[in-house]
Amino acid sequence: MSDHSEAPVAPVEAHEPPYYMAVFTAVRTQDQSGYSETDARLEDLVKDVPGYLGTDYAQSPGGLAITVAYFRDAEALAQWRCNAEHRSAQKRGQAEWYQSYTLHVAKVERSHGFTRAHVPPSPTAG
Amino acid sequence: MSDHSEAPVAPVEAHEPPYYMAVFTAVRTQDQSGYSETDARLEDLVKDVPGYLGTDYAQSPGGLAITVAYFRDAEALAQWRCNAEHRSAQKRGQAEWYQSYTLHVAKVERSHGFTRAHVPPSPTAG
Repeated sequence: MSDHSEAPVAPVEAHEPPYYMAVFTAVRTQDQSGYSETDARLEDLVKDVPGYLGTDYAQSPGGLAITVAYFRDAEALAQWRCNAEHRSAQKRGQAEWYQSYTLHVAKVERSHGFTRAHVPPSPTAG
Repeated sequence: MSDHSEAPVAPVEAHEPPYYMAVFTAVRTQDQSGYSETDARLEDLVKDVPGYLGTDYAQSPGGLAITVAYFRDAEALAQWRCNAEHRSAQKRGQAEWYQSYTLHVAKVERSHGFTRAHVPPSPTAG
């Protein structure tokens, strides 16, 4: 068995609808030079957007990568969409990092969450 | 089907809005007995739902699993939501397979796709 990651993993929780989410599904190219640095920078930047609610991310090895970013309303999402560094990264992504992708922007109408009763006694950063 | 990584991978393409998507973000438990069989069965079943548009899936090793299922309209999604075998699998998922999950059901307002241009192999290319 593989070791557990030290950082607790949990999906972004359900928020009170309506809210917005952007679902980005992508296949990466072989050359990912500069991707990690840009991704880390964008992760920092998006946290400054008022109404940003969090991001879920998963990537199957050698397969699809899915990013889901949640926002309180359309204005918050638009602010992120128009961020200059974000737009610059999108252009570089098309030029270098992505073989193909699809973006779906949607208004959440209903949501709910589930957590198993047993919760590890690990402090989580808010 | 083989899960070998040579299989072509591509994200579900953008459809004409509006359409619906269900985003399911989950952390699995250690015991996944029966999961694969149930998952394969549900994959077959959902294809019979009129208006089903496809599913994107990614899972980071030891981390989050994200499933995004797309439907033409709310009626198609409701039909899948009410499917008896699907509901039974959800109950088993809570009892056995999931540590935690969140479900977000949303109406897609905007979408677009990108595919890298490439030159197909030509027998006359020199």
